[in-house]
Amino acid sequence: MTSPAAPLSWIGILGDGQLGRMLALAAARLGLNVHVYGPDANGPAHAVAARSTIAAYEDDAALTAFAAQVDVATFEFENVPVSAARLLAGSTRLAPGANALEVAQDRVTEKNFIRELGIEVARFSDIPDALALEREVSGGFGDAILKSRRFGYDGKGQVRLSGNAGTNELTQAHGELAGAPAILEALVPFDYEISVVAARASDGSFVPFEPARNVHRSGILDTSTVPAGLNDADTQRAQAIARGIMDALDYVGVMGVELFAVREGDETRLLVNEIAPRVHNSGHWTMDACTTCQFEQHIRAVCGWPLGDPSRHADVVMHNLIGADVDQWQQIAAETGACLHLYGKAETRAGRKMGHVNRLSART
Amino acid sequence: MTSPAAPLSWIGILGDGQLGRMLALAAARLGLNVHVYGPDANGPAHAVAARSTIAAYEDDAALTAFAAQVDVATFEFENVPVSAARLLAGSTRLAPGANALEVAQDRVTEKNFIRELGIEVARFSDIPDALALEREVSGGFGDAILKSRRFGYDGKGQVRLSGNAGTNELTQAHGELAGAPAILEALVPFDYEISVVAARASDGSFVPFEPARNVHRSGILDTSTVPAGLNDADTQRAQAIARGIMDALDYVGVMGVELFAVREGDETRLLVNEIAPRVHNSGHWTMDACTTCQFEQHIRAVCGWPLGDPSRHADVVMHNLIGADVDQWQQIAAETGACLHLYGKAETRAGRKMGHVNRLSART
Repeated sequence: MTSPAAPLSWIGILGDGQLGRMLALAAARLGLNVHVYGPDANGPAHAVAARSTIAAYEDDAALTAFAAQVDVATFEFENVPVSAARLLAGSTRLAPGANALEVAQDRVTEKNFIRELGIEVARFSDIPDALALEREVSGGFGDAILKSRRFGYDGKGQVRLSGNAGTNELTQAHGELAGAPAILEALVPFDYEISVVAARASDGSFVPFEPARNVHRSGILDTSTVPAGLNDADTQRAQAIARGIMDALDYVGVMGVELFAVREGDETRLLVNEIAPRVHNSGHWTMDACTTCQFEQHIRAVCGWPLGDPSRHADVVMHNLIGADVDQWQQIAAETGACLHLYGKAETRAGRKMGHVNRLSART
Repeated sequence: MTSPAAPLSWIGILGDGQLGRMLALAAARLGLNVHVYGPDANGPAHAVAARSTIAAYEDDAALTAFAAQVDVATFEFENVPVSAARLLAGSTRLAPGANALEVAQDRVTEKNFIRELGIEVARFSDIPDALALEREVSGGFGDAILKSRRFGYDGKGQVRLSGNAGTNELTQAHGELAGAPAILEALVPFDYEISVVAARASDGSFVPFEPARNVHRSGILDTSTVPAGLNDADTQRAQAIARGIMDALDYVGVMGVELFAVREGDETRLLVNEIAPRVHNSGHWTMDACTTCQFEQHIRAVCGWPLGDPSRHADVVMHNLIGADVDQWQQIAAETGACLHLYGKAETRAGRKMGHVNRLSART
């Protein structure tokens, strides 16, 4: 295990969105200095960082200069080019590693990787072209979702397909992905969706938060509720799945693992939907309900500090404020038990994550 | 009541120390932009602010430019010159008002003000010069503390005097204050010290936190413990004292009110020691034990937002990390139930507040 990055160290964060902002605030609480790197001068993370670099992720000169100025680098989202991560890893400490990005950036690679660990995923098929799509559907694949292999998030690059879709429908679906390599995933008739947000340190220690039960709306996370209603055995199985994935990647930092829960009699099947090698929207509830939140936990892990205490002191429902939802800020600010978080984004757009509120209640 | 400063408003903070830093972090969580004004380029608040002005509090041109760039201004410490506060109040919203600074900056003014509200304070006497000091002591004032009237903090500018101190001792004591105008305060044989940290909004609404029991070491706050061990009636009396003072000042923001508790039979006398027209070290426990912390509460008040929910979910002991205490950061980071806060100060000096830790335990 490398020596910890002491207070006053410089923490570099690739990405200037709200996750970077909340990571920066957590790092500041620990007496660390933050340097944010991202392409958007109005990105909300820049406003709270001691230093900023406004540059593209493909700008090797800017990346090299950034690496020289930080003691530890990390990232706030999984679509950072692997080449940028490798460049940073060559000249500073980087966590999580570029291998986690590589796996998470391609849905086929990710699903193969997880399946090879003996962890269940939805049935899937690699769809390199329109012909492959037609062959799978006509071959009886069943109800499915066609997703671009790379760079999808918040339901973007996804089309739902009926098992008896005709040629026109398939052509249109493939066209919506602009001909990009795709994956066909069987629609899982899940009873509910959960996620495990967990931290792993470089010495292999593993500290999961409790699972959250997630509800999506228009492909975007709407609410995360904790406790999720799982029994202890299922909670431990879900956390063990996250640990298995993180151990296999020798992962350092916080990861979000989304799972489908399918009830079959007394049993609950857990299938991994996807992983995110970063702090995760479904972990925002930890900011107000836990002794240590996911953002501090990530900073601790990537800096080589001991992982923090994830104890939860309240039941909580995290509600995302999407687009015009944020106009309710005054009513929310007046609610008892509500913790409001706004991201400082100047422009409100439909589908844009503008903030969230954690509504606390007595721990059951 | 003026309209609230909406998210994305610019909040100006006079003062660049750790209180300014924690105010800035709280404002950022609410989607506000922060502009820190202070004389020290290495002041810990600058590193987390979107904008910084490094200038003296006496620099009227810099203050005028600052006022033009912020929607609301506030301050993190009570020794901001009243002239600076008045200048800001002339061209932007300022909270708390300059009147609170004026009262709190002079111990004689402060004690007269509080006593006139019918609130008990320690017996005191104005000491304009060495002659007055000798007259009071020889007249039987008793055991006392001689304090400079202005600009004292953390035990600086204070000398303890026995009731039978001789002329040499008095001359030396007065000399230690460099001849500054002073106040002689009777030593209160208190059983314990408490403080009430409370918020008041511009509509007069008042939200106190629970009192903390404080222990000082070498004149500097060492620990604040909540619950403080007061019964409900004394808790309410202490909070009512804070409210009386804040109402009388038409105060907007968070204030810290320090009190001595003196047990007399079944009764507890409460005497105000001093007030601080700002967030207060003895309120740092709220950061991890309450739904809304004192820093967010202050930002809400000065921005005209509804005050937040002060509910406490844990028992807590706040321990200041003074000087070399901060070297224990790794052990503290590994403790269960410990929330570590470091201020990002580059230089560790004896007596300097470097951080604090909130140790949480189950609510009793």
